[in-house]
Amino acid sequence: MYDYIVVGSGITGLATAYHIKLMSPDSSVIVIDKEDSVGAGDTSKSAAAFRAAFTNKVNLMLAKGSITFYERVQNEGFSLGMLRVGYLFAVDATSDSIVRQGVRAAESLGVDVDELQPEILSKTLLMRTEVSGSEESKIVGAGDIVRGYLFKYAGVLDAEKLVDYYYSKLRSMGVEFQLGVPVKEFVVSPAKPLGIEGEPFPWEEARVSGVRLEDGRVLEAKRKIIAAMGVWANDLLNPIGIDTYSRPKKRQIFVVKADTQELRSMLYAEGLNSEKVMPFTVLPKGAYIRPNPTESTFWIGMADELGRPFARDENPTAEERYYTYGILPVLSLYFPQLGLKYPEASWAGHYDISFDGLPVIYEPYSSGLVVVAGTSGSGIMKGDSIGRVAAALALDMDEVELGDGTSFKVSLLGLEGRGAERELLIL
Amino acid sequence: MYDYIVVGSGITGLATAYHIKLMSPDSSVIVIDKEDSVGAGDTSKSAAAFRAAFTNKVNLMLAKGSITFYERVQNEGFSLGMLRVGYLFAVDATSDSIVRQGVRAAESLGVDVDELQPEILSKTLLMRTEVSGSEESKIVGAGDIVRGYLFKYAGVLDAEKLVDYYYSKLRSMGVEFQLGVPVKEFVVSPAKPLGIEGEPFPWEEARVSGVRLEDGRVLEAKRKIIAAMGVWANDLLNPIGIDTYSRPKKRQIFVVKADTQELRSMLYAEGLNSEKVMPFTVLPKGAYIRPNPTESTFWIGMADELGRPFARDENPTAEERYYTYGILPVLSLYFPQLGLKYPEASWAGHYDISFDGLPVIYEPYSSGLVVVAGTSGSGIMKGDSIGRVAAALALDMDEVELGDGTSFKVSLLGLEGRGAERELLIL
Repeated sequence: MYDYIVVGSGITGLATAYHIKLMSPDSSVIVIDKEDSVGAGDTSKSAAAFRAAFTNKVNLMLAKGSITFYERVQNEGFSLGMLRVGYLFAVDATSDSIVRQGVRAAESLGVDVDELQPEILSKTLLMRTEVSGSEESKIVGAGDIVRGYLFKYAGVLDAEKLVDYYYSKLRSMGVEFQLGVPVKEFVVSPAKPLGIEGEPFPWEEARVSGVRLEDGRVLEAKRKIIAAMGVWANDLLNPIGIDTYSRPKKRQIFVVKADTQELRSMLYAEGLNSEKVMPFTVLPKGAYIRPNPTESTFWIGMADELGRPFARDENPTAEERYYTYGILPVLSLYFPQLGLKYPEASWAGHYDISFDGLPVIYEPYSSGLVVVAGTSGSGIMKGDSIGRVAAALALDMDEVELGDGTSFKVSLLGLEGRGAERELLIL
Repeated sequence: MYDYIVVGSGITGLATAYHIKLMSPDSSVIVIDKEDSVGAGDTSKSAAAFRAAFTNKVNLMLAKGSITFYERVQNEGFSLGMLRVGYLFAVDATSDSIVRQGVRAAESLGVDVDELQPEILSKTLLMRTEVSGSEESKIVGAGDIVRGYLFKYAGVLDAEKLVDYYYSKLRSMGVEFQLGVPVKEFVVSPAKPLGIEGEPFPWEEARVSGVRLEDGRVLEAKRKIIAAMGVWANDLLNPIGIDTYSRPKKRQIFVVKADTQELRSMLYAEGLNSEKVMPFTVLPKGAYIRPNPTESTFWIGMADELGRPFARDENPTAEERYYTYGILPVLSLYFPQLGLKYPEASWAGHYDISFDGLPVIYEPYSSGLVVVAGTSGSGIMKGDSIGRVAAALALDMDEVELGDGTSFKVSLLGLEGRGAERELLIL
């Protein structure tokens, strides 16, 4: 019997366990994961970037709170591989009309953005900004780069190191781990059992009292169970009548090595930030390049929406065709030198996409089960904040303090009264 | 080639086609359904009740608009079997504390509610209101009826007649029907095809251009395709990367015949409305009785949440055990005479439950496909309003007039900026 059971050891699960333990040090907490090691699900597949650059106030609060916390961790000596390289949106006339709105909205929330002329981009990143004459430009429907928007409070981090941080903290706090055995089902029990077969009946008060593992063991929770299972959640929640209202979509990353002088100049670009590394760069049509300077590589990706199934893949893989026909036409338009290189590695994971792009954190039917889902591609960047909100809900608190000291209303991530505004800066 | 293709011929599909045709009379419209007849899905399984009694302003607007429209139809000579019998919440002390909040909130929105003393309920409905001494009361956890709240602008209607109404109107307006062949898939096409295999690529503009039927035929839409497919939507939408963010839950109805003098007195209760029929009556714990006076029967049901799977059943059936152990303990506590009778018939359908209980009407990724889903158990009662909003979205309008003349902002049912308030009066 534990006070709290956290199912899922991605960043959101780990952060939730961590903040439960901080807020309620005497509680016993166990973290369960079907994998043999922590953070082995979609956390390990992430592009692991961060940006305090959103137009939706809730998004911005969650991101800022987490990033501030992560930077503090790193400043106190535990390296998370955080590099403030910035986030660069390089826009053509068409994408500018959309991104500009996002930039203005973000600025009105106090976000710091530099506008860069195309010449700066060609000089620092060796970017081809004048493309409109070419056949490729016409086919792809992407034009000359008219401007760059550089969000400065943004960058990349190392997801594995962040997992290590939470894991080591949790171990030292006495949190238990049960790894390598999947949960078979969540156990729903009547509050006051009558001992009649078929309980709980609809007139009985009932709660999610524990989890049954595939090996037959049942672990019970005295207080709350937290389902932080990402895209695996609905498999086990739907059978007991709960849904995350979030759905999986495959996302792919392709790795290109910076093994020429030109590519190294681009990767270790000077003049855009004090790290002397290219910013996380977003091109027209949404193709992006995430610098990975420690290994001298570029991580390249692009989100696809219409036509990309909502589906979970037990073993997702990156598709060569997707790189060649989906990404390369855009990438090689602006970075011909990159387009010549073929990826030396690739992998794929999932986004767990909620209906409005904000995380979903709620306790359905006062069931004792807290759902933590819908990270929508920013589960790492917002992970610490999500963990705090989930921990607060598990402890029946209405408000919680985020990593930057701001107070956050827990119900803002519930299913009702989210008061969601449209997010304009999306990837 | 049609201007508009509506997939699904439940009330929401029919109402959408109807309002598209009213708003744009020159457009060609076709309605497709996999069944051989219209309205044969969950529409035909509904308890078919209505109430202009909600605490959420959006819910109230949608319900009021539809009901006003239906009453006008009936007053103009097309009977929809509408009977304003009212909606009665009979509460014990525990449920009163929740329902009362809902009543006050509804009253503040102008909803008309009578409070009835328990004596009136025993007299008119032959209800046993004093139960707290009994063993059953203790087991079930339901006590003496302390009060009744009678919402007067509410009642029952005949779903089949409503289907007939829309169908006959649509036929006379020249709308085509394609029945009896399922849709195999939605077809996604590039706006400007290049003729390369694998299109559309993520950098291409793409839209849902048509539907492929199981028999191989492809129907194309010049303007918009509307997916009003209830709980079948995600099967075909998920593969093209769209989700309704609504999920199916089984709901069951049991029919008990009023074949004794006592049960007839209860069914044709005098003094509560001018129809001389018992109101739609909700008991503590949520068991309900829906009067069906034309056939001298009661329709009895109860919603279950935690423990009832989110799942679609191709051929859902009502469960005898659910009646016996789930409903009967509550029902026979307050209506022992009803408890003695065993159901002579039963059936089951699904609610299509959205994340906040409000319908979901949106056009994802400017794809030309309008999703109409998440009716959450009130697809008939709100059907006409939902049809207007969906038609407006299909016609690229921002606002639409509902059946009672009020203006409604289409984006209120989109995924973002719903500004949803918590609904307190739920079944």
